[in-house]
Amino acid sequence: MAKPANPVHSIRWGNAGQPDPAHSFLQLLDQTRLPQETVYLDLTSVAEVWQAIKRLSVRGAPAIGIAAAYGVCLACRTSEPRSFAELLNKCREASEYLATSRPTAVNLFWALNRMNQTMDSLELRWAKSSTSEQANPAVWLQAQLLQTAVAIHEEDRVMCHAIGRIGAELLEDGDQVLTHCNTGGLATSEYGTALSVCFTAQDQGKKLHVYVDETRPLLQGARLTAWELMQRGIDCTLICDNMAAHVMSTREVDAVIVGADRIAANGDTANKIGTYNLAVLANFHRVPFYVAAPSSTFDLSIASGASIPIEERLAEEITESFGKRTAPVGVHVYNPAFDVTPGTLIEGIITEKGLIRPVTREQIESVLQVV
Amino acid sequence: MAKPANPVHSIRWGNAGQPDPAHSFLQLLDQTRLPQETVYLDLTSVAEVWQAIKRLSVRGAPAIGIAAAYGVCLACRTSEPRSFAELLNKCREASEYLATSRPTAVNLFWALNRMNQTMDSLELRWAKSSTSEQANPAVWLQAQLLQTAVAIHEEDRVMCHAIGRIGAELLEDGDQVLTHCNTGGLATSEYGTALSVCFTAQDQGKKLHVYVDETRPLLQGARLTAWELMQRGIDCTLICDNMAAHVMSTREVDAVIVGADRIAANGDTANKIGTYNLAVLANFHRVPFYVAAPSSTFDLSIASGASIPIEERLAEEITESFGKRTAPVGVHVYNPAFDVTPGTLIEGIITEKGLIRPVTREQIESVLQVV
Repeated sequence: MAKPANPVHSIRWGNAGQPDPAHSFLQLLDQTRLPQETVYLDLTSVAEVWQAIKRLSVRGAPAIGIAAAYGVCLACRTSEPRSFAELLNKCREASEYLATSRPTAVNLFWALNRMNQTMDSLELRWAKSSTSEQANPAVWLQAQLLQTAVAIHEEDRVMCHAIGRIGAELLEDGDQVLTHCNTGGLATSEYGTALSVCFTAQDQGKKLHVYVDETRPLLQGARLTAWELMQRGIDCTLICDNMAAHVMSTREVDAVIVGADRIAANGDTANKIGTYNLAVLANFHRVPFYVAAPSSTFDLSIASGASIPIEERLAEEITESFGKRTAPVGVHVYNPAFDVTPGTLIEGIITEKGLIRPVTREQIESVLQVV
Repeated sequence: MAKPANPVHSIRWGNAGQPDPAHSFLQLLDQTRLPQETVYLDLTSVAEVWQAIKRLSVRGAPAIGIAAAYGVCLACRTSEPRSFAELLNKCREASEYLATSRPTAVNLFWALNRMNQTMDSLELRWAKSSTSEQANPAVWLQAQLLQTAVAIHEEDRVMCHAIGRIGAELLEDGDQVLTHCNTGGLATSEYGTALSVCFTAQDQGKKLHVYVDETRPLLQGARLTAWELMQRGIDCTLICDNMAAHVMSTREVDAVIVGADRIAANGDTANKIGTYNLAVLANFHRVPFYVAAPSSTFDLSIASGASIPIEERLAEEITESFGKRTAPVGVHVYNPAFDVTPGTLIEGIITEKGLIRPVTREQIESVLQVV
């Protein structure tokens, strides 16, 4: 339960300065306890990482991918001596297992796929490794896997800044932005996606005011986004999700900017439940609606949003989410964690490779440089 | 704290069988504690009624009007002997004071205005009353005022049933309805407004399924509407407010039906915050959007919704509404209790005098038989 100096470092790898995987751990800021408590979880097993993703201690599409990549590395942490083949097999099982933690965000599968590709390349490299390296297969294997996990983590940091730079061009000094859920440093490796646009605009000297949807049922907006904005000194106002139309019609809103968990080939975007609501409202009020996401969020294998699996979560998130029962016992509840916004309602998708506008299959392929 | 047999009797007048106003009280079902606890408040002063309205122990536009009318009668409850003129003055002050409890719902002012008209007529009647009546002005005055309060209460019951009959014609067996906030027996004298449409359809043998918006911040949908529907055996599913668009696009919704707190001459309708959201979403998904309200909800003195005062409530309703702080300390909050839906987005307004469709100034005047 060490407490790093920068509380927005939501994910960090640790090994207490020792190369032996027996000392390795993944440290996560427990996002379920913010903003009241800043508690770090030191996870030492793949199962603990799976649980942390499932129960949303770590959340946000990019952050889930990063945590899962590190989670695979933890499979090398074993008390018994194992052969390289046994260890590699454990890591492959870990990757498969972690992929079952949540179904919607594609970054999870994208990150695990990169880990799998690394694993595929390691058998040959292991055969060519030195005798001293072969003396401890766990140390060697974890070091190799960590290179990929760290690269995913670091690349995300760079991508978030690029998204911020590209998105900030869309905002002017004095603009009012409305956002949903949490897309800042907690959801990614540093600056975030939609919030990176706001943070970068602020870095450029533009003064913004951000309306923060509280984001039922788990209040990521109230708990996490308001907290991140306040930490950075950005003027913000918390509202309930159902106030967005009233705010758009009675106050000036210059842009809605949200993140994404999976984007289909035609631009249809799965994101936190309530995003589609906002897109319809923005469309009605002629407020431009932007999605900010790294290119790893695109799933070009699916033609449209209709094929994106939507996670349904427990009724208790709605009926007892604050530790107090607030609905009759036995009531039926529908609790989809995501919805799908048609690409046709999206003014532009801000990626690290450029702004996709208009949101069409052709423009997506062009900006992402799909061969 | 007696507990009446029918728990949906949210308002009842009591005097322990004695005509002396010293024994009179107004019994309210404390809606802030439902569905966990069924607690009745026995109120004995005008100030207590004001507080009960302000803190939403009694809520729902028609119910507020009924409670306030009875509240005026409580002004006759005095421990000291007073002249008729003194007592009438106290009642007039009570009416003025109760009108300051909440600003948006017009039924409150409508009901108090009826009480004021009764008071205006009483000076002459008092002069003509018998000597035995004049022996106890408090008893006489309270009895006179109660006639009007009981009439308001009883008329509301009849109006709710008429609204239900007229609205139920719009629904078919198997329909799926989406509703917001609470518009049932708790918000009125018995059947409610929007929920009366559902209850009446059920009475006619039509089987419905109702999606219930939880209605942030105070969860009247989750706490009260789900409870009323379950008590009556109507199939219902609780959702968060931000799920409505997803439900409309992925499941069949045949109608949205909501209540109203004030309707302007052009049909613009103030109702619980989130109603305007729903109207825009229904418009986009081509789902008919109905308002159900008694004619006392119309305020023809104002031309459009822009003139309806919108109550803003405390930030803590959003940041601490479940007894637990869920947002950073010091965060700015915007908490409007109502929003305004333009009449142009409303398919029809269901009143006890008939269905207003299309929603135009002319059609409103025609159905309400405005001279």
